[in-house]
Amino acid sequence: MRVLILGGDGFCGWPTALHLSARGHDVEIVDNGSRRRIDQELGAGSLTPIEALATRLAAWRQVTGLTIAAHSFTVGKDYDELVDVLERFRPDAVVHFAEQRAAPYSMKSARHKRYTVDNNLNATNDILSAIVETGLDVHLAHLGTMGVYGYGTAGMAIPEGYLTVKVKTPSGWAEREILYPANPGSIYHLTKTQDALLFQFYARNDGVRITDLHQGIVWGTQTFETRLDPRLINRFDYDGDYGTVLNRFLMQAAVGYPLTVHGPGGQTRAFINIQDTVRCIELALIHPPARGERVKVMNQMTECWRVRELAQMVSRLTGAEITHLPNPRAEADENDLLVENCRLLSYGLDPITLEEGLLLEVAEIARSYADRADVSKIPCVSAWNAERAAATAGAAAASAVAAE
Amino acid sequence: MRVLILGGDGFCGWPTALHLSARGHDVEIVDNGSRRRIDQELGAGSLTPIEALATRLAAWRQVTGLTIAAHSFTVGKDYDELVDVLERFRPDAVVHFAEQRAAPYSMKSARHKRYTVDNNLNATNDILSAIVETGLDVHLAHLGTMGVYGYGTAGMAIPEGYLTVKVKTPSGWAEREILYPANPGSIYHLTKTQDALLFQFYARNDGVRITDLHQGIVWGTQTFETRLDPRLINRFDYDGDYGTVLNRFLMQAAVGYPLTVHGPGGQTRAFINIQDTVRCIELALIHPPARGERVKVMNQMTECWRVRELAQMVSRLTGAEITHLPNPRAEADENDLLVENCRLLSYGLDPITLEEGLLLEVAEIARSYADRADVSKIPCVSAWNAERAAATAGAAAASAVAAE
Repeated sequence: MRVLILGGDGFCGWPTALHLSARGHDVEIVDNGSRRRIDQELGAGSLTPIEALATRLAAWRQVTGLTIAAHSFTVGKDYDELVDVLERFRPDAVVHFAEQRAAPYSMKSARHKRYTVDNNLNATNDILSAIVETGLDVHLAHLGTMGVYGYGTAGMAIPEGYLTVKVKTPSGWAEREILYPANPGSIYHLTKTQDALLFQFYARNDGVRITDLHQGIVWGTQTFETRLDPRLINRFDYDGDYGTVLNRFLMQAAVGYPLTVHGPGGQTRAFINIQDTVRCIELALIHPPARGERVKVMNQMTECWRVRELAQMVSRLTGAEITHLPNPRAEADENDLLVENCRLLSYGLDPITLEEGLLLEVAEIARSYADRADVSKIPCVSAWNAERAAATAGAAAASAVAAE
Repeated sequence: MRVLILGGDGFCGWPTALHLSARGHDVEIVDNGSRRRIDQELGAGSLTPIEALATRLAAWRQVTGLTIAAHSFTVGKDYDELVDVLERFRPDAVVHFAEQRAAPYSMKSARHKRYTVDNNLNATNDILSAIVETGLDVHLAHLGTMGVYGYGTAGMAIPEGYLTVKVKTPSGWAEREILYPANPGSIYHLTKTQDALLFQFYARNDGVRITDLHQGIVWGTQTFETRLDPRLINRFDYDGDYGTVLNRFLMQAAVGYPLTVHGPGGQTRAFINIQDTVRCIELALIHPPARGERVKVMNQMTECWRVRELAQMVSRLTGAEITHLPNPRAEADENDLLVENCRLLSYGLDPITLEEGLLLEVAEIARSYADRADVSKIPCVSAWNAERAAATAGAAAASAVAAE
């Protein structure tokens, strides 16, 4: 099928583009380079040496003989260009990664909150609006986040997007299925819950076919395709804003620092390997909802771990020590998380687990490129609100000194 | 108290500014004139002859001796100006009307959908973000809409913002209170449901005090204050995009046309008089939520009517005939609507009813200014989707001919 990948130069977008191209699909990319500009802004960068998009695409052509076209414009702003690409390429599916995707970055300051809301919501609305305006029968697959559910689920498994509740009617309590009540943990997560309302509206009003993939935290760097040539390598973020907790642990271990756990580390999170991410996206594209069907929501994750369990796992593999710091996020110290992910498993996903894959990640990425790391970038300094900023100020200063 | 009114030149904003000023509050206005620019775009305009904002404010000063300062910039775009006004004026409350507020306008085309999403969401986020950044303890009162609830409530009264549901837990079904599940009927209504998520987040994460007023359709034009001088007159919209169903009926009756009911007219809507709107806003400002309290939601409406009942009421008062046309909106032909509005009543609101107030509106506005009407602007031509556009195309053409 023809697949247009919005945000195809990013951490998930790039390996997805390669995977779908390798699997015989006709792929085009749109990307405005925003993620690379944010690297400049933060004075941080991928641990792995990533090439310019043009170099990446030339390498892909050289290694596989396959061509991926790329377009440089901003989804959510350059609307006419988006319509032009849709009308010329006539994709069967659009995969939407064109959003600012770091929770800590979205909480850094008013400017970062404003950028995240403006970018993410206008991007999603522009895509939906363009699909309606062009009249094309496009399946839109969107990368959402497990974070839309919030993290207090009272021991019940989180279902895939919809929750069965009982509501009072004149004839007593009756069952209804509703969009899972949103409880986002950051401005970034908030925009994904607002996206969900956009999807619900356009699916019902215009019959747009939409799949929303509520993804867990992605770990791992390389996929089968990105390993084919050094110029195809995927990015690895370890900084306090874009680096997920696991990547920061791997980096800290590789450079000989203690693993920094925020609070007691009882926060439970859902995870998925990058190789499984790209597989899931193809599975989602192969199984679109029917026209007129409600938004299809799938939980794109494969396992759950507490932060302190991750630290222990990394510590066992590397010998690193564990230390505890105040949490800059406004969140509960401990939570359970049970998640349904039946659909993707029923479509044939055979997950890579952390326990089997983490050692390769340590060796292939963290240790190989440790000399490229700027350890001063590892601490999380984006506080969620004034109270957390005050509580973490001392610790951040101490941690900055330790990193020098 | 000091009150900053965003969108203070519009249909609700202007009489609210005057009412609060008259009641002894210190009022300032922000408005970018967008509603007047949309008049130009649509080739439509207020039936009543409204003055430029500067003239209005000079007249208010002359008549009452009271001063209202005005600032011209775009909320949602000119963020630094917003922060400047907040820091200088240090308002106790901000009333947020700075949103594109017509459902049909929001559905006209991709451009109108994009404008509504971009304007409304960035405006709301900018205000919240600026309140957090300045650290001011501001109470934000927002004009929401009854339309966030959708129109299928199975015979149960719509509560004020939150719904008690039962959810399954390991120990059986347990009661929870959730934000009322959103079911918006247009892009405009959608943005209000997305606003609700912004409010929920900022209230919980930053302790911002927020009241969201889910308002019914406002009818009536003048308030006690706007009647004090002809230069203070409020706007009256009767065009197919901004004119509400009641205003269009009044206009059609005044110029001797049949009242056009869409479909069988079984759609039930909630209503409130403009005089009650401005009273409710002061009541909301007098009764803010406490710091750390969840978002306070009140249903700002006083009565419910079916569209065909409105037509019959106008017909009785004016002798106009009633005719039926296909509905350009994707919605159910018939719905019941029961709404709780206990809070505002408990704060002392004594509503003006349609049955007692409508005759004055017919005489004071519709008949007085009928010679200013452009009858070609009355038909609703914004269709909700391709299917409704096809169904209404013939009728719109016929109605345009009839209007010549």
